[in-house]
Amino acid sequence: MKISVYPTSDYVEDRDIKDRIVVVIDVLRATSTIITALYNGCKEVIPTADIESAVNISKNYERDGFILGGERNAVKIEGFHLSNSPREYSRERVENKTVLITTTNGTKAITRAVDAKEVVLASFINISAVYEYIAAAGSDIAIICAGTMGKFSADDILVAGALIKGLEDKGISPELDDLGMVAKRIYLNSKDDLHGALSETLHYSILKDLGLQGDLDDCLKLDTAPIVPIYSDGVARA
Amino acid sequence: MKISVYPTSDYVEDRDIKDRIVVVIDVLRATSTIITALYNGCKEVIPTADIESAVNISKNYERDGFILGGERNAVKIEGFHLSNSPREYSRERVENKTVLITTTNGTKAITRAVDAKEVVLASFINISAVYEYIAAAGSDIAIICAGTMGKFSADDILVAGALIKGLEDKGISPELDDLGMVAKRIYLNSKDDLHGALSETLHYSILKDLGLQGDLDDCLKLDTAPIVPIYSDGVARA
Repeated sequence: MKISVYPTSDYVEDRDIKDRIVVVIDVLRATSTIITALYNGCKEVIPTADIESAVNISKNYERDGFILGGERNAVKIEGFHLSNSPREYSRERVENKTVLITTTNGTKAITRAVDAKEVVLASFINISAVYEYIAAAGSDIAIICAGTMGKFSADDILVAGALIKGLEDKGISPELDDLGMVAKRIYLNSKDDLHGALSETLHYSILKDLGLQGDLDDCLKLDTAPIVPIYSDGVARA
Repeated sequence: MKISVYPTSDYVEDRDIKDRIVVVIDVLRATSTIITALYNGCKEVIPTADIESAVNISKNYERDGFILGGERNAVKIEGFHLSNSPREYSRERVENKTVLITTTNGTKAITRAVDAKEVVLASFINISAVYEYIAAAGSDIAIICAGTMGKFSADDILVAGALIKGLEDKGISPELDDLGMVAKRIYLNSKDDLHGALSETLHYSILKDLGLQGDLDDCLKLDTAPIVPIYSDGVARA
């Protein structure tokens, strides 16, 4: 099993992903939020790269049939129902609804992966479910980290490292690229104190400064939403 | 002092570098080779992004006044005097000559930095000289790693980490971006056995498989060429 890790979706070429399962990670917070919404019984999540697309697609749904969610620069989009905090996407808010969501980094990374063999959404909250799924599939994978505003983001890299470590714990010896090796090493160094390891990083600091410590707590918990969302034809479903 | 680290030169924006000292790192092998050539008394080094430019510029020089050097995919360019091994650029080969060099990753990264406030070439072999220089300058810096074929390359990241560690040892507390934090941590983990840390990485493996263990040994030694080459107006000088 070959594993390539990309620090942002900008570095991904179509030829890199077309025969691979792509794992998209935006732990702070897009994939954590989407996974939470699906775990809490929403019918489907439609991630869009831009605000206009989310609004346009929402016109196809009954008024009570959808939720518009998302953020730009970590702040809720005006006129949208919800922001990008996992805890907003409770069962009572989202059950049986379609969630349309657009975020600064994550939904761009997800939609970038559209030509892959298959696209899986990952985060700490479903990490074991994802590595069990990947181990069973046995396919080469490409891990696309969303990054933060176009830059390498340590939070996503830690999730990539956790995924690689999980696969190795199952007896798989993946062929890693350089960023995969670094991700694994940094995760092993950080796993006993994820908050401490990330406390000075950019994305963590932005969310903390916005008073979103609850989101940071939710997003850095392991295996609280043990499902494997697959993104296909523009829609993510559990 | 702010420090930003870029895994390759592809996503560096002009606005990111124009008010900063840029440090370009391609430890395997372009910056190691250029630093060695300058340390061994060559008059100047002209890095070019492509082969044609190197050949065209060479036409301005007397036959004995220049050396054409470089590689593509780690192999010497046909018709060139030298490849990209530091040990080829001995004093007797290069003294008082102009070296024209083009390589797969490194010279592209150097020429990309042309709009920076100043461009410094770094490697393990001049790492202390570089951090002393940067510490004295006190300017914000951008570290551009050359990467390997457009991808994150652990070898260059280790040099970035060594530079950051050197600055911190001098009492400077730079404001790091996420990749800077990761680079420092990985360097601290690896510094006692750089060969071991890199043995399975892509670029190291390619060079080893080509029988270039001598180059790997040369490039991973610290402070064997204690000079600070500055790249300006298309020319690098010590």
